[in-house]
Amino acid sequence: MRVVTLRPLHPDVGQLAMLLGTWVGEGTGSYPTPPDFSYREETVVSHDGKPLLSYRQRTWALDDGRALHSEAGFWRPVAGGRVELVLAHGTGVVEVCEGTVDGGRFELSSTAVHGTATAKEVTALRRVIEVEGDRLRYRLDMAAVGQPLGLHLTAALTRVAP
Amino acid sequence: MRVVTLRPLHPDVGQLAMLLGTWVGEGTGSYPTPPDFSYREETVVSHDGKPLLSYRQRTWALDDGRALHSEAGFWRPVAGGRVELVLAHGTGVVEVCEGTVDGGRFELSSTAVHGTATAKEVTALRRVIEVEGDRLRYRLDMAAVGQPLGLHLTAALTRVAP
Repeated sequence: MRVVTLRPLHPDVGQLAMLLGTWVGEGTGSYPTPPDFSYREETVVSHDGKPLLSYRQRTWALDDGRALHSEAGFWRPVAGGRVELVLAHGTGVVEVCEGTVDGGRFELSSTAVHGTATAKEVTALRRVIEVEGDRLRYRLDMAAVGQPLGLHLTAALTRVAP
Repeated sequence: MRVVTLRPLHPDVGQLAMLLGTWVGEGTGSYPTPPDFSYREETVVSHDGKPLLSYRQRTWALDDGRALHSEAGFWRPVAGGRVELVLAHGTGVVEVCEGTVDGGRFELSSTAVHGTATAKEVTALRRVIEVEGDRLRYRLDMAAVGQPLGLHLTAALTRVAP
């Protein structure tokens, strides 16, 4: 069923193509409520020939390897250097983000964030991603549980497979 | 990096465990705007030891094999036979659904649906899924582009891998 990997990249993917591949690395997290933490990450970005990219992120605690966060969704190119990102989080949150890509720099802010009845309340997210060759760094800011938008995660990843 | 498959299933997954596995089959779609269509589907539901399931669906047109729809997200068990589902769609839509599981029958309705600036407007979704052994049938109702909630998709799948 994996024939999707044989399809040519849709030309409208454009600058988003720099995100394709399997990325691994480490990150650190902080926020007012929990203590700081460090994590290992694997992110896979793939395509199936349509003008969008599939995205899947997983993280594990550096200290004991337990599964931490998962999120999955889609990157969508828009004309004029704009990008859209729709994500679902294992925490019960969904996110619509929109923004720009300029060179290797992506800047996106949430236009909608919603959660299930049992999810912690998240009200805004901001994502900045910088790609240079096979290196990727990101910063995620979050507003949640009554706190204003502030630094939540930073990570540095390396592309280990195309 | 695939050590996640070795972790024991979290006991809180409960009745959601019947969704685990790789499912393939065929479905048909209809809605006021496009003509009816038939599709092949592959859906993969997996876990990483946490009390949630990862979900990934892809469909391809039966006539020429072109990629059609993709969606990805997470199923979350809630005490008392309730379930939560958070999804992102390749079409630029995110969805929060909540409902119940009773025996092999899941009934969920959207509590929030949002899209990107370029997405078609979807305002509500309702999902009914019936699992019996290695057979799964679902019906998806959708309200979109100004139309009321109505039948959009039905499909029958078979579990081909655990």
